[in-house]
Amino acid sequence: MAKCIFCKIIKREMPSYKLLETEHSYAFLDIFPLSKGHSLVIPKSHAEFFHELSDESVADLSQVTKKVANAVIAATGETQYNILQNNGARAHQVVKHVHFHIIPKPEADSQQGLMIEWPSAKATEDELKDLSAKVLEKL
Amino acid sequence: MAKCIFCKIIKREMPSYKLLETEHSYAFLDIFPLSKGHSLVIPKSHAEFFHELSDESVADLSQVTKKVANAVIAATGETQYNILQNNGARAHQVVKHVHFHIIPKPEADSQQGLMIEWPSAKATEDELKDLSAKVLEKL
Repeated sequence: MAKCIFCKIIKREMPSYKLLETEHSYAFLDIFPLSKGHSLVIPKSHAEFFHELSDESVADLSQVTKKVANAVIAATGETQYNILQNNGARAHQVVKHVHFHIIPKPEADSQQGLMIEWPSAKATEDELKDLSAKVLEKL
Repeated sequence: MAKCIFCKIIKREMPSYKLLETEHSYAFLDIFPLSKGHSLVIPKSHAEFFHELSDESVADLSQVTKKVANAVIAATGETQYNILQNNGARAHQVVKHVHFHIIPKPEADSQQGLMIEWPSAKATEDELKDLSAKVLEKL
């Protein structure tokens, strides 16, 4: 994708603080971090949504994410973190190229890291039964 | 883990709305959903943090997450969603057994789905250079 900034980073047409690169994946520091160590892991092959990725790409991304998470923990000393991957503008996706965020949650500063609201509500048994049947049909 | 509710779900000692099961992973509906279709994907082998999982478990979890995401999209008609995995109480982890959330972000109701705040700040070149060197040492 000629205009995609993450494709440009992969092709070295834009600079990045690279952490790890494999055949299928590329990991680098987020330059607008939510906390120290905030990193991104992306597939080299352009896709907008997670569910569009090839199985090979998904497998490799997950291994690279684990490796980078361990290294970020070792480098920062922060063992708590969020892994987040947003699909679509409503779901807070800004760059339209799949990316996994690794976002440390520092002990020292509760204002750093990912801030989440969790307005969950108990589903009824009927809702869950109906929905699980519908999802199972598609699996 | 005898007291872990997700281990109990895997062993059928507690009920769940199961969606998919493999050798390494188990997927089911969250009964306290943030939106319709909110699902969980967990490893069968107990671990508290993502970075503690085996490579096999990580690989399988990622494939199951992709399959379930596709099925949830097909069943609900919602194509936008978040994938979220929390590590540690500060990072909003409640059940101490690794779980990936798949959380649809419905078009019809902006109050449903994951709510995120994103108080990011541009890092300096010096900060990024120093940090990337530290992470690279650990990779």
